Amino acid sequence: MKEIDRNNRVAIVGGTHGNEWIGAYLVKKFEQFPQLIQREHVEGFTLLANPRAFAAGRRYIDKDLNRCFRSENLADLTVSSYEENRAKEICTLLKPKCNSQTDWIIDLHSSTANMGITIIPVSDHPHNLRLAAYLSSINPQVRVYRWQGSEQEKSCLRSVCSLGCAIEVGAIAQGTIDARLFQQTEEIVCAILDYLNTVNQETVLALDYSLVIYQGIEAVDYPRNEKGEIQAMIHPQLQSQDYQPLHPGDPMFLTFEGEPIAYIGDSVVYPVFINEAAYYEKGIAMCLTNETKISKVMFTEALRDP
Amino acid sequence: MKEIDRNNRVAIVGGTHGNEWIGAYLVKKFEQFPQLIQREHVEGFTLLANPRAFAAGRRYIDKDLNRCFRSENLADLTVSSYEENRAKEICTLLKPKCNSQTDWIIDLHSSTANMGITIIPVSDHPHNLRLAAYLSSINPQVRVYRWQGSEQEKSCLRSVCSLGCAIEVGAIAQGTIDARLFQQTEEIVCAILDYLNTVNQETVLALDYSLVIYQGIEAVDYPRNEKGEIQAMIHPQLQSQDYQPLHPGDPMFLTFEGEPIAYIGDSVVYPVFINEAAYYEKGIAMCLTNETKISKVMFTEALRDP
Repeated sequence: MKEIDRNNRVAIVGGTHGNEWIGAYLVKKFEQFPQLIQREHVEGFTLLANPRAFAAGRRYIDKDLNRCFRSENLADLTVSSYEENRAKEICTLLKPKCNSQTDWIIDLHSSTANMGITIIPVSDHPHNLRLAAYLSSINPQVRVYRWQGSEQEKSCLRSVCSLGCAIEVGAIAQGTIDARLFQQTEEIVCAILDYLNTVNQETVLALDYSLVIYQGIEAVDYPRNEKGEIQAMIHPQLQSQDYQPLHPGDPMFLTFEGEPIAYIGDSVVYPVFINEAAYYEKGIAMCLTNETKISKVMFTEALRDP
Repeated sequence: MKEIDRNNRVAIVGGTHGNEWIGAYLVKKFEQFPQLIQREHVEGFTLLANPRAFAAGRRYIDKDLNRCFRSENLADLTVSSYEENRAKEICTLLKPKCNSQTDWIIDLHSSTANMGITIIPVSDHPHNLRLAAYLSSINPQVRVYRWQGSEQEKSCLRSVCSLGCAIEVGAIAQGTIDARLFQQTEEIVCAILDYLNTVNQETVLALDYSLVIYQGIEAVDYPRNEKGEIQAMIHPQLQSQDYQPLHPGDPMFLTFEGEPIAYIGDSVVYPVFINEAAYYEKGIAMCLTNETKISKVMFTEALRDP
């Protein structure tokens, strides 16, 4: 099969979380102006993933939709929550539409953390890494984050495709739109479509094959008491410092009484998703990452991929 | 009655909106360390106003609690929502506790708008203006906002007292805590208690009697289509520019298609609550204010007040 056939249907998904409005309103814009997501060799189509949560202005109604896509959940006939049933619907919508599978997925998210423009590849498939490298090369603000092989990844909406990425932009409060981030997100989506259009013409893009991935290694919770109540806040020196180095001994939290709590670790890490509102209930104050350089070999393999 | 008797019981209220966590967690801190809100001549006490919404991480369960305090609502025996009933409970809790009325109220709020540290006096009572002038004088970051005499004011929780203020801090995403804003809010609460303690000793504080009030004149909605869907975002040049001058012709909104929409008006205004998440459903994109200087006369009257 030629690449031109493999990459031509691209699902652009917004509102997987109903209070992340940049993706939801971008999907509505693309619905109104569908020519914006068409290319000669690419057919973009949209999906508002969680319309009930979007209408309610909430992340979800019953359960986080982005944790409902594990195979065993999708096969489970006994599920009753809105999001678990919606996940099954989405699989039906994305997979066999027009007698064609969805080839690529772009799942649009936003964060209260200062994530800038973050690309989260669906997998380490060389095609995904090439795309990430391309986006990094045309926009130095783009960062690439992965939480490789975790159980959580398998439950995400984007796991329905092996090609594609989530886009996580921030900082932005839930239930709001920020015009600058809206435009930047639209630019990234269009850049992906342009890239796939070029690839589908079997044009070899000039890439410098350098890619830094922030590889998730540990989720850190807030200090809590025996009742589970948080006892400290993100330290002011760490607030909004996503992707910046955190050294052993650097302040990480500040108790409500004003006592700093330091990061205890052996080596420098790069925290992301710092103070993400939706993660308080998940027991995550931030995700620690390693800065990892991807070797040229992986890209070369990508070029040999059928 | 001496002022020392009039000003000694101060209600410190947090979590009126359940997803505004700075106030809620500050109340929890004060509950744990009650000595922090005691002074020789001031008795502070706390109230977590909407515990169910706080537990749910939402602004409210059925209805905005801060719109439930109109006299006719409080007298209505047929109300059934959680917040309408909670409003009645709060009136019972605040008014007759320990055979004494609540003398002052401090209602702690936060905003996704860049409100900095905003004081919203309960009324134009000279005591409230004096307090606002004092807080402005010790902290130049403090701004004073009023929406005088509106119907909405009468429905706010703070309307149960004629003395006191709301404190509105931001920008902060709903359902998060920002350590710096938390500490700044605590400092302002303590400054108010210190001030009242001094006033209660009948000490005349040196005030320069200058006070700028940002006086609300108009709430502006987002451009919407016939279905009520928003058609534009806050313009990037206006985003986060709360309290900065907006001149006729300056860009106000940006449509999703990228067209700027200018402010049409006769004179310069100072928008606040720009892009407040909770106000989308209320049809408010921002509140326009006038910058108003309060004359010395009003403070002099305050000094003659019994």
